Amino acid sequence: MKTIGVVLSGCGVYDGAEIHEAVITLLAIDRAGAKALCMAPDVEQLHVVNHLTGEVAEGEKRNVLVESARIARGEIKDIDDVAPDDMDAIILTGGFGAAKNLCTFGVSGPDCEINETVARLIRGMAAARKPIGAMCIAPATVAKAFEGTDKTPKLTIGNDAGTASGIETMGAHHEACPVHDFSVDEENRIVSTPAYMLAGSISEAAEGIEKLVKKVVEMA
Amino acid sequence: MKTIGVVLSGCGVYDGAEIHEAVITLLAIDRAGAKALCMAPDVEQLHVVNHLTGEVAEGEKRNVLVESARIARGEIKDIDDVAPDDMDAIILTGGFGAAKNLCTFGVSGPDCEINETVARLIRGMAAARKPIGAMCIAPATVAKAFEGTDKTPKLTIGNDAGTASGIETMGAHHEACPVHDFSVDEENRIVSTPAYMLAGSISEAAEGIEKLVKKVVEMA
Repeated sequence: MKTIGVVLSGCGVYDGAEIHEAVITLLAIDRAGAKALCMAPDVEQLHVVNHLTGEVAEGEKRNVLVESARIARGEIKDIDDVAPDDMDAIILTGGFGAAKNLCTFGVSGPDCEINETVARLIRGMAAARKPIGAMCIAPATVAKAFEGTDKTPKLTIGNDAGTASGIETMGAHHEACPVHDFSVDEENRIVSTPAYMLAGSISEAAEGIEKLVKKVVEMA
Repeated sequence: MKTIGVVLSGCGVYDGAEIHEAVITLLAIDRAGAKALCMAPDVEQLHVVNHLTGEVAEGEKRNVLVESARIARGEIKDIDDVAPDDMDAIILTGGFGAAKNLCTFGVSGPDCEINETVARLIRGMAAARKPIGAMCIAPATVAKAFEGTDKTPKLTIGNDAGTASGIETMGAHHEACPVHDFSVDEENRIVSTPAYMLAGSISEAAEGIEKLVKKVVEMA
């Protein structure tokens, strides 16, 4: 049975992992006959957002690994304890957490920082020729991880010109892609889909994510 | 387009709504061509559980509506502002939140209390002959809402003898049901499925939930 790493970044679209994307990914992995290995960094969230009002909850602190455990029903590893040998592929789900907690692209753009373990793991998977999946804004994290290497990852974040330009500044190539489809970088073995960067409904997000997971599991 | 109310109870299996069940429900509603109306009570959670360790986070407080908004991506109503006229059916997702925040069956058993708005809404839907869906432990909430009425709801919580006996003490009839199936009470228009009361995997939970949603939308 293939093991697919799933990188989470909290629990909630505005300050963590996008919950719909994460659950649809876990279901699609299980239905493909593979096993999910959930992981997240044991670090404090950039901030906590009240998802009812959209406002930052001043003074509140939450931990990315602890909140991600909600999506994983407790079955999750500290990403520091995971190596490329532990899995056959890796998928990064979206939500602002990918661009606030895994890297800071959502705050600082292409000059952002990236969590060192996340970057090392992505580059390690690439070095091992194991497929990398990324959805929504998470391709920005993948682009940052590849920045400064001799590789030019081809990725999609949908069709937002500003975000696409930010990804290209980090050395990646952006490919526009509709929400129901995915983009494949055969050379670097990267699969990406826009998900909630473009989706107007949960079904729209699910269509692209289910196709992405199927493709990643096949390639693994 | 039919509107299906979805009652959430926080965000996380151990102190709120079971996230997989909630997302699978929302996706199935959308795929059935219906519209979800998410709602939750604006009350404090019974407690906060660290989902990584399983331990209660002493001193921490979270609000059920605010946390439920994470699953609903901010599109959620205070359940006090929802009436049976606003929807064609209602579905209660599971997770300990249903038995800690909507009612306290998970703590006090059949002698539990129930949130008055939740109880009134369930009885109002029944009076309007609109279908009621419930999964996982949420049938206990439905049983409590019907307690003391002249109706005997038929429900399933899977096959756990202790929980089934608790539901029967509240005046409901428990029907054993496998995880991939659902139980229908034609007289009271209630559909229930065991979901994570029995599921060993997310796919197992999804199979019964998808069937439940299809049935509820058809009946609505």
